[in-house]
Amino acid sequence: MAGNSFGKLFRITTFGESHGVGLGVVIDGCPSGIVIDWQQVQHQLNRRKPGQSKIVTQRKEDDELQIMSGIFEGKTTGTPITIFIANTNQKPRDYDHIKDQFRPSHADYTYFAKYGNRDYRGGGRASARETAARVAAGAIAQQILAQKGIEITAYVSQVGTLELTKSYTELDFEAIEKTPVRCPDLPLAKKMIAYIKDIRKQGETTGGVVSCVISGCPVGLGEPIFDRLQAALAHAMLGINACKGFEYGSGFGGVSLKGSQHNDLFVQNEGKITTTTNNSGGIQGGISNGMDIYFRTAFKPVATIMQPQQSINEAGETVTVEGKGRHDPCVVPRAVPIVECMAALVLMDYWLMAQTTKF
Amino acid sequence: MAGNSFGKLFRITTFGESHGVGLGVVIDGCPSGIVIDWQQVQHQLNRRKPGQSKIVTQRKEDDELQIMSGIFEGKTTGTPITIFIANTNQKPRDYDHIKDQFRPSHADYTYFAKYGNRDYRGGGRASARETAARVAAGAIAQQILAQKGIEITAYVSQVGTLELTKSYTELDFEAIEKTPVRCPDLPLAKKMIAYIKDIRKQGETTGGVVSCVISGCPVGLGEPIFDRLQAALAHAMLGINACKGFEYGSGFGGVSLKGSQHNDLFVQNEGKITTTTNNSGGIQGGISNGMDIYFRTAFKPVATIMQPQQSINEAGETVTVEGKGRHDPCVVPRAVPIVECMAALVLMDYWLMAQTTKF
Amino acid sequence: MAGNSFGKLFRITTFGESHGVGLGVVIDGCPSGIVIDWQQVQHQLNRRKPGQSKIVTQRKEDDELQIMSGIFEGKTTGTPITIFIANTNQKPRDYDHIKDQFRPSHADYTYFAKYGNRDYRGGGRASARETAARVAAGAIAQQILAQKGIEITAYVSQVGTLELTKSYTELDFEAIEKTPVRCPDLPLAKKMIAYIKDIRKQGETTGGVVSCVISGCPVGLGEPIFDRLQAALAHAMLGINACKGFEYGSGFGGVSLKGSQHNDLFVQNEGKITTTTNNSGGIQGGISNGMDIYFRTAFKPVATIMQPQQSINEAGETVTVEGKGRHDPCVVPRAVPIVECMAALVLMDYWLMAQTTKF
Amino acid sequence: MAGNSFGKLFRITTFGESHGVGLGVVIDGCPSGIVIDWQQVQHQLNRRKPGQSKIVTQRKEDDELQIMSGIFEGKTTGTPITIFIANTNQKPRDYDHIKDQFRPSHADYTYFAKYGNRDYRGGGRASARETAARVAAGAIAQQILAQKGIEITAYVSQVGTLELTKSYTELDFEAIEKTPVRCPDLPLAKKMIAYIKDIRKQGETTGGVVSCVISGCPVGLGEPIFDRLQAALAHAMLGINACKGFEYGSGFGGVSLKGSQHNDLFVQNEGKITTTTNNSGGIQGGISNGMDIYFRTAFKPVATIMQPQQSINEAGETVTVEGKGRHDPCVVPRAVPIVECMAALVLMDYWLMAQTTKF
Repeated sequence: MAGNSFGKLFRITTFGESHGVGLGVVIDGCPSGIVIDWQQVQHQLNRRKPGQSKIVTQRKEDDELQIMSGIFEGKTTGTPITIFIANTNQKPRDYDHIKDQFRPSHADYTYFAKYGNRDYRGGGRASARETAARVAAGAIAQQILAQKGIEITAYVSQVGTLELTKSYTELDFEAIEKTPVRCPDLPLAKKMIAYIKDIRKQGETTGGVVSCVISGCPVGLGEPIFDRLQAALAHAMLGINACKGFEYGSGFGGVSLKGSQHNDLFVQNEGKITTTTNNSGGIQGGISNGMDIYFRTAFKPVATIMQPQQSINEAGETVTVEGKGRHDPCVVPRAVPIVECMAALVLMDYWLMAQTTKF
Repeated sequence: MAGNSFGKLFRITTFGESHGVGLGVVIDGCPSGIVIDWQQVQHQLNRRKPGQSKIVTQRKEDDELQIMSGIFEGKTTGTPITIFIANTNQKPRDYDHIKDQFRPSHADYTYFAKYGNRDYRGGGRASARETAARVAAGAIAQQILAQKGIEITAYVSQVGTLELTKSYTELDFEAIEKTPVRCPDLPLAKKMIAYIKDIRKQGETTGGVVSCVISGCPVGLGEPIFDRLQAALAHAMLGINACKGFEYGSGFGGVSLKGSQHNDLFVQNEGKITTTTNNSGGIQGGISNGMDIYFRTAFKPVATIMQPQQSINEAGETVTVEGKGRHDPCVVPRAVPIVECMAALVLMDYWLMAQTTKF
Repeated sequence: MAGNSFGKLFRITTFGESHGVGLGVVIDGCPSGIVIDWQQVQHQLNRRKPGQSKIVTQRKEDDELQIMSGIFEGKTTGTPITIFIANTNQKPRDYDHIKDQFRPSHADYTYFAKYGNRDYRGGGRASARETAARVAAGAIAQQILAQKGIEITAYVSQVGTLELTKSYTELDFEAIEKTPVRCPDLPLAKKMIAYIKDIRKQGETTGGVVSCVISGCPVGLGEPIFDRLQAALAHAMLGINACKGFEYGSGFGGVSLKGSQHNDLFVQNEGKITTTTNNSGGIQGGISNGMDIYFRTAFKPVATIMQPQQSINEAGETVTVEGKGRHDPCVVPRAVPIVECMAALVLMDYWLMAQTTKF
Repeated sequence: MAGNSFGKLFRITTFGESHGVGLGVVIDGCPSGIVIDWQQVQHQLNRRKPGQSKIVTQRKEDDELQIMSGIFEGKTTGTPITIFIANTNQKPRDYDHIKDQFRPSHADYTYFAKYGNRDYRGGGRASARETAARVAAGAIAQQILAQKGIEITAYVSQVGTLELTKSYTELDFEAIEKTPVRCPDLPLAKKMIAYIKDIRKQGETTGGVVSCVISGCPVGLGEPIFDRLQAALAHAMLGINACKGFEYGSGFGGVSLKGSQHNDLFVQNEGKITTTTNNSGGIQGGISNGMDIYFRTAFKPVATIMQPQQSINEAGETVTVEGKGRHDPCVVPRAVPIVECMAALVLMDYWLMAQTTKF
């Protein structure tokens, strides 16, 4: 209820703060007998972690996962799986100067107003560092889904005004990991990297878009009415720090089409039902139709900038806030695994739910 | 779990089908002792109902609410409030010809695949008629919130390519109800109406955008991490039939701004903390900051068009499907109260949740 | 959250009051494609309804079920099933005299204190009449389980001090319905009936015990730790009006045994694992072990007696309360189908849950 | 859903196994700004831990709590509180001999059947050692409730056939902690201790009863219908290892009373409403009425005995199982803090829920 859990049948609860002992996640409802590839989980953590490239924050955190429960002789037991990631490179002193200040467009003020007692160090619980815990859980879901043939792939499709306009079907997903910006269009990726470096020099930040494609999803995942598959995906994405928007299939662009242009016609090919187009984004009536599911998520410019900004403090006095330390000029490269992992949590949950529909 | 409930503390469950006995909703968790203005609830139902103007479907349904439980001597009792809306003008025969067909971009195929046994008449449970039940519940939430000073107002901001580019702060909300299209910019509204009429003559349909503004929201509503206020709003909106996207505050447009342009600076005025701009859309760290909350929702063109389309039937044979009867050329005018009511359900739920945070 | 729903995957929500329009239940999560025997559902409602015999209340209520949603062409569709039972023989005037009084050991005072506005007529929402709605839902679960070979049978095992000491294995369940008291030991049943008649003449009431046996339950139903199968059954039973206790397997009597007497030894017979005794009551570690599940539930004497009792009213004044009208001298005969149906709701929920454990 | 969480608004999730890294609990929904007395939490852990006296198991475990999250500058922050208790004295080799055996009346067989892969060491997840995690969480709830004047006290009221027949009102709760058996009637406690020592010498075990009293509970806690306060308490208690029964107020004994004997008459004293008797056990209609809440819980004899018992193994072969190592002859002395802490979790949850009822 208090917001720290996600999912119903494959249910995770995260805990921990940016500058506390560490971050953790408990996964309840993971089926038993599954071998987990922990290197794959660590790989997703590494894609999210700071310090991985020159265009992200230079903080060094190992984000090494520790298994605390739920695994016996290398396999899941059906009991809660707990993963812990210790905080090892925290410099809480970096935050002494903002102890009682409200940084613009951060959660400082709202947490103060809601909770009274807040851990101001690095954003405390509101820090994007919390997403490490979800990535650990989501990476487990992702590899279980892969065993069922469901593949989830995210990539950067916009940085600032640099936009990838090609459809995902024209892209080579192998190219995503070839650059630190995680845009599979390499010439555009180069421009994005240059832009991020430039913006950082200015003490500025920028936003971006992460696109995601889910292929191999069987027909029938999703619950109708309030818990449509797209509603759960939107919930998952808007629950990521800095995410400002979600659209799937034709999205906002689809509103200006006519019905005859937008409708996806059903055809049958050797017993397999597909559609000739996919404006539906793989979901109809809230339920997957077997086509690729795809969606886009907007991320705002990082709020911490290396420039003085006017603000107020807890006493209501006007103060000048200025970012210090090591911060991201743009979050989308590191958001790629987060989007994948949150999508995986949704799909895994709905996959389990689908087991209960037919008698 | 199966998708027919929404909310945690102010929790609704809807039931019923387009061509069954009727639609209903049970509200569990409504505080006691509240006088409900039933005319106001009926008013929202009337704004949603078919046949209300020349630019919506000409089906005639009274959508008259019946109170089945939870009210005693005119006030809520804290026990479940049930509202029922009988189906009175159904013509199930209109659907005989599509009994075993999958209409393009409808839920026919996915429901068939997931459930096997489906009520094909008018879309059955997947029909947008289900939203009448949510509107009844949401209208109750909306008026309770109004007693706390929280006002929720939605309007049409795009139809086809006709887009309202003004900020909501420049609009006169009194003008929303002056035209059947519910766009408060009257010259633009006129163009939208003409466009919808034109598109209908073509046997076509179009999409649109509904914008929504929540004013008077106190600081502190929202749960962090996974259940941020924006995540719940996105979940609510993507759970509406035909909704394809959600963005709040600066949204997708904000991604190309620089951090210094996007950040909202805090200022204090006679003890009240506000921000100089509101790219945050009234939410920071998932928690309301006291500024207006605003968001936009994309709706696709209506799938039922008055043109022949190729499709397949349950046997996998190629068939020609053609819309018959009375359908909407564009859903956004009728979606306005649905967006308001779903937003009200979210806010009411979080308002109750906020009562449990401080000890 | 507010208490009117039960179950997670097979989830019911009841609504309505004793003297309002009627009682209803929405079932969300029922698998699709199941043919429901409505006569069987009505049969369970009839076993619960007042006026069925001379030893229960002489109120006449038809308790005829109406199907409001979720059934198409005679089968479930996977969408919410709603059943409504109209109130047809209410005499609200019977309650005018207790309008502002708190009847001893009723819910009048606590509802008043918690909610302020309460429907005092016949107990309003707190009336045991609400159980009609659960019975309708539970009867559906019960017949679905029967299709899986799971049989649930309850019977009266104590009335006042008249106690059935035989094990359920020695009883003929066919005899349960042979007398209105629903005790399968016919000589004892006769005594119980005589006792209930006698107690009624005194203007008194008495309590009793309902025992329940679940046979044919597969191994593996139940969730460990907090949601053990016995915990869910206890929750279900203590949620029935007037229920004061629950014990399963050896229960309270088992505490005085030694471990060697109490332990159930595993044996194997042609591939089937059973235990030589069944003090475990068919549940170990919260999970069914394939043996019969059995439990006992205690019901207090009915609070409404035909004698003057001292009490207070809303103003805090001392008043004399006296039962009028038509009330049960003992609830256990009518509680038998309620216990069966609540048990069925638990088992059905856990049966669905068990589908999600193995991958 | 998978059983490892408890509560709705004050929601805990436990993780860990008897012989893994350790046990832990995440508490989500604890209000912010509360100072926790960690010595008090450790004190409850110490009352539960093995090795504390000569009548409990002689295993030595420190059960020292570590705070992993949710506390800042000594106070709760409203974010998840995580407590971890490392396993320090595990001897997994003690269990090698039962690796593939099903110990009688343990969870070995059902876990094997349900999950396939099970941690057999010390019962793994099914071990009563899991209750350490709940005690840590419950001890926090208990002290928060104490700040509101709600006191929860449990004690041993039966061991084998040695039964404490006095009402709790005649007991001196200060005497509970004076003997290791935690029965406040000291002459009886002495007998119980002697009995437990004797039974241990026989290689046997015995059961017992834990009674619990909650005083100072305000009127109005509890949700009607399915989530009555007693239903939640029963759920909590039957979720404790080895618990076989629950009764509150007059319980099973009350069934043989007449209505006029059982009813609790309301009286008013200087504005305070009380009842002359308390057969209702402080709860009417599922809602607390301001009187003491009291209940009893039955615990079966410990399943591990120091005698050879026949059983089967995973291959279905007949084997002889014999307890080794250090086990409890009777769990009730150590169950006392568990019962208190589970009751505290229920009360805390309902206390928060009660904040949402009135508008």
